[in-house]
Amino acid sequence: MDVAILGATGLVGQMFVRLLENHPWFKIERLVASERSKGKKYKDIAEWPSGDIGEMEVEGLGDFLKDPDVDLVFSALPSSIAGEVEEKLAEKTPVFSNASSHRYEEDVPIIVPEVNGDQLKLIEVQQEQRGWEGFIVTNPNCSTAILVLSLKVLSEFELKKVNVVTMQAISGAGFKGLSALQIFDNVIPYIGKEEWKIENESRKILGLDFEISAVTTRVPVSHGHTEAVFVELGQDTTVEELRRAFESFDPLRDLKLPSYAKPIVYKEIPQPKLHRELGKGMSVTVGKLGKINEKMFKYVILGHNLVRGAAGGSILNAELTYRKKVI
Amino acid sequence: MDVAILGATGLVGQMFVRLLENHPWFKIERLVASERSKGKKYKDIAEWPSGDIGEMEVEGLGDFLKDPDVDLVFSALPSSIAGEVEEKLAEKTPVFSNASSHRYEEDVPIIVPEVNGDQLKLIEVQQEQRGWEGFIVTNPNCSTAILVLSLKVLSEFELKKVNVVTMQAISGAGFKGLSALQIFDNVIPYIGKEEWKIENESRKILGLDFEISAVTTRVPVSHGHTEAVFVELGQDTTVEELRRAFESFDPLRDLKLPSYAKPIVYKEIPQPKLHRELGKGMSVTVGKLGKINEKMFKYVILGHNLVRGAAGGSILNAELTYRKKVI
Amino acid sequence: MDVAILGATGLVGQMFVRLLENHPWFKIERLVASERSKGKKYKDIAEWPSGDIGEMEVEGLGDFLKDPDVDLVFSALPSSIAGEVEEKLAEKTPVFSNASSHRYEEDVPIIVPEVNGDQLKLIEVQQEQRGWEGFIVTNPNCSTAILVLSLKVLSEFELKKVNVVTMQAISGAGFKGLSALQIFDNVIPYIGKEEWKIENESRKILGLDFEISAVTTRVPVSHGHTEAVFVELGQDTTVEELRRAFESFDPLRDLKLPSYAKPIVYKEIPQPKLHRELGKGMSVTVGKLGKINEKMFKYVILGHNLVRGAAGGSILNAELTYRKKVI
Amino acid sequence: MDVAILGATGLVGQMFVRLLENHPWFKIERLVASERSKGKKYKDIAEWPSGDIGEMEVEGLGDFLKDPDVDLVFSALPSSIAGEVEEKLAEKTPVFSNASSHRYEEDVPIIVPEVNGDQLKLIEVQQEQRGWEGFIVTNPNCSTAILVLSLKVLSEFELKKVNVVTMQAISGAGFKGLSALQIFDNVIPYIGKEEWKIENESRKILGLDFEISAVTTRVPVSHGHTEAVFVELGQDTTVEELRRAFESFDPLRDLKLPSYAKPIVYKEIPQPKLHRELGKGMSVTVGKLGKINEKMFKYVILGHNLVRGAAGGSILNAELTYRKKVI
Repeated sequence: MDVAILGATGLVGQMFVRLLENHPWFKIERLVASERSKGKKYKDIAEWPSGDIGEMEVEGLGDFLKDPDVDLVFSALPSSIAGEVEEKLAEKTPVFSNASSHRYEEDVPIIVPEVNGDQLKLIEVQQEQRGWEGFIVTNPNCSTAILVLSLKVLSEFELKKVNVVTMQAISGAGFKGLSALQIFDNVIPYIGKEEWKIENESRKILGLDFEISAVTTRVPVSHGHTEAVFVELGQDTTVEELRRAFESFDPLRDLKLPSYAKPIVYKEIPQPKLHRELGKGMSVTVGKLGKINEKMFKYVILGHNLVRGAAGGSILNAELTYRKKVI
Repeated sequence: MDVAILGATGLVGQMFVRLLENHPWFKIERLVASERSKGKKYKDIAEWPSGDIGEMEVEGLGDFLKDPDVDLVFSALPSSIAGEVEEKLAEKTPVFSNASSHRYEEDVPIIVPEVNGDQLKLIEVQQEQRGWEGFIVTNPNCSTAILVLSLKVLSEFELKKVNVVTMQAISGAGFKGLSALQIFDNVIPYIGKEEWKIENESRKILGLDFEISAVTTRVPVSHGHTEAVFVELGQDTTVEELRRAFESFDPLRDLKLPSYAKPIVYKEIPQPKLHRELGKGMSVTVGKLGKINEKMFKYVILGHNLVRGAAGGSILNAELTYRKKVI
Repeated sequence: MDVAILGATGLVGQMFVRLLENHPWFKIERLVASERSKGKKYKDIAEWPSGDIGEMEVEGLGDFLKDPDVDLVFSALPSSIAGEVEEKLAEKTPVFSNASSHRYEEDVPIIVPEVNGDQLKLIEVQQEQRGWEGFIVTNPNCSTAILVLSLKVLSEFELKKVNVVTMQAISGAGFKGLSALQIFDNVIPYIGKEEWKIENESRKILGLDFEISAVTTRVPVSHGHTEAVFVELGQDTTVEELRRAFESFDPLRDLKLPSYAKPIVYKEIPQPKLHRELGKGMSVTVGKLGKINEKMFKYVILGHNLVRGAAGGSILNAELTYRKKVI
Repeated sequence: MDVAILGATGLVGQMFVRLLENHPWFKIERLVASERSKGKKYKDIAEWPSGDIGEMEVEGLGDFLKDPDVDLVFSALPSSIAGEVEEKLAEKTPVFSNASSHRYEEDVPIIVPEVNGDQLKLIEVQQEQRGWEGFIVTNPNCSTAILVLSLKVLSEFELKKVNVVTMQAISGAGFKGLSALQIFDNVIPYIGKEEWKIENESRKILGLDFEISAVTTRVPVSHGHTEAVFVELGQDTTVEELRRAFESFDPLRDLKLPSYAKPIVYKEIPQPKLHRELGKGMSVTVGKLGKINEKMFKYVILGHNLVRGAAGGSILNAELTYRKKVI
């Protein structure tokens, strides 16, 4: 299938390119970016080196929209322009979007395959209601994508309340998002709208109405979001039982998706520097699991914000959709 | 009053020196360290430059103990040796200790002047029970010293449950505590015994039996511990009322202690790089105060781990003790 | 004397404010910045906290130029606009500028007081030629300001050839100059025009025509430029003699200038973290002095790029000018 | 061929393991470390995760020496013990050593295959003189290994004088070599004996007696040494000609060595973060080439200190030796 990547020169866009470079199902046919990059070779504007794709010429978004003839679109557009562009494309073409623009619409699913792959059925509703041949499927915000994998496991024990503190990497803010003097030797406990996104996206993805509250911070780490979680369950359980549940969680194992990796790996002391690349960035790491009382537990989880938390998650969504023959 | 600083060459010891260099009440008479440093000039082993004190000669601990003739001892000894040494000294001399060795003994107070200065009355009990002329007063672990200032304010609203995640600075582990390759580009969610200390010291200092659970992490920040806190109160209140309570908290104002600073400063987005030096490191900064529901709130607090969290806290304890004429 | 600071909200502008806050001769009367900052309180746009000055209102540059009634102007304007603005102001008012716009004009001196204070005599030439009542005096580029202090000393031994490699701090690029992902875990051996500036400004300031070549790099350090220097002299000498020459260099000692500090301090291993604040940022540190052969030596020098290398240097220029009764 | 890795748990030792894990000629049979690690699984003591090798048990050095039955030894031992151990092993076995212990002995070659592969002929001399069946071949110090690749190219233009400033990565000091507080926000212009090593090893490897002087510094970069070089040549040339010479340098191209990569890559602005992994860490990057005058040039070079500068260089030495049928 021929695919286009929108916003191909941003950090998430570049990660889409890296992950799709040798993909067995999807072939990068078009690299689309802002007018500023139009006509340039990809290797001359991408920070990360790459192979053959580096020789491809980047198109302006305007030109692409005049003739968007591909089988599939991956969108890493900024939210400010993703809304309109993606809707237009979805009239004819499947769009897998990392933007937040459509996430909160009722007929647009936010998918994490291991958690709520069944909500791909919303595609049909969406096509009917909107009269589209294509559709929009979103993946969640990066912190949520990581967190909900663990919450899905915990939901077997009746999820009642979640308090989460994130320690998010610099790359989550984009290439120029944070100046060195701002974040160097610092922790910044403010990321715009992030708390709201974590709280609301988690509930939508899990389809459950539990209490959840987040404090989000930026730390001087290049890649990999770490999250410390306190959770209250409805059922008594033990650290051992929870650990087993985390380790045995593997709903996609038999689907043979190209981007598949074991979703959760357990390590005593999860650390971004050591574990963010596990499963090529698609595995999250859980650890420091502790019991507070019969029904309250704490743990730490981390994952690669640009892979599992963005481009990789979106590609896994497309793979699942393809496998289920929706496309 | 003539004072000795034990463990004068470590990070906390050096902070004691800096803070006492021009102190109006306490005069550094003796600098005591391990045998390795014995006989050297202070300026040749201290990382931080300093003035006249740099010319003083460092004594070995063994020599000091043979003739510990000072009015007051500040101890920045490692816990492994502080236990025995401090007990011996306390037979004759007041000891203000940053070590954890005696913190959990019933007749030894852990003091944060703004929170539980009244517990200095334990000194009398301690002297009677142990037959000492001197005594031991401790200050809490660095994360606790910062946190309890806010919990004291919240206790006016009936403290029921606290979940706290710390993001602690490198200097909390001592000068050689963390190698650059370990913590560079990393978050390490493990600090030995720290969670236990925070939970138990907080309850002892406040004299309250509330639920408290901590996850402690190390982040690549030089100085300043940041803590994200979720708290459940027994009484309904509002963000505005809590903020006012934080800002008006100032129990020591009228005591004219030399190290006094307003204990809590409110900033929208507290950050170690911008705020750790407020009040010369003695003020903690609270911010990001938010309401989760009627009785649940969240906020961020930070403070200088070597000043308010260690040497500065210990000196304030000595000042309060002196002001109250216990010494 | 009433002074205005132009470009008061940038990093150099803020350093001017800090250094002038309690200055005995100069009083900050006007804070001038771009239209964007106009009308705001200084404390609401400056990254660094400050005292009373924080309450002052910032003026737009346009408004200021309509009525620039002060005794002295310090300019931290970007070069792109400094040229024209400073010329206009200099018709009536002394301007001490950190911008590069006028540095290379024949009748504008680049002053480092300890090196070429006598070139203040160019002011008279400038006023005559241009028909101005005021004048423009510049300070050099930050790396040069640090380097030439040592080259002045070496010129006593006949300076023949200099090879210098700079390792420059992030703050030299301004608050937003470098994104965290660019410089984090990196060395970037490119700083636009910097090599040319070092080579040409050094020769102009010293008034000597020696060979000099620079390689300039950016390193992940917040403040403090470090420079490694190879130098060929015309006379034989020894490490000991050179060290004595560095340490005894102190031409301003008797002038009682408020910003005076010993210009050169010798330390075995100069390091930005330990030594950038020496002399309140006005002293540079020389060390690692070694002999290659009879006439070739190497050494390391470092200094605070925002103080000695920018605002502090400019203020020292104004103090010297005032002391010499030019103003 | 069955190989043993001595010092397998240090940073260089771990890099040997990584690079040999799927090597077509060499099979890791024995992992040898200090007594402290004896009997542990490799994965439990190595910071870097690895595959099957992680299950191997680590031997103590004492046990290994009793029965060192392998075809080849790679030594990443600390210099303090490498001297004696390597000599004993070399009686029977080829030893490729990253330690400096034997580098300066006349009959022990320091090899960089692209530069002086022909000096492998010293092996025969060594065996004869010492009565050994095995031998010792060393690779240079990390900074030298990178630098000499460029000096070899420049020697075609008659090398007269070199001034080099290194900006070396933290990992060059070993896992615990630098504490975070030492190097964080700092440049440290001191690395024990490094200047001497660069100067003397470069001359020995090139077999030329040119003037060379180094200043060595440590910078807060995880991996990748950057070096700024000033060079005086005996022949006139141009930047273009030098660049062509760098780019066309490729003496090993036709030997089909498993670790082969193009030795020198040219990039306008070489940076450790972007280029240290080129050629899987075996390529060095040259750039910022500039002309000072007819015969003086400057450039920047960087390479991966643990790969080209240590384990990778040593493995390439073994491959070349094997290809030339010395083993």
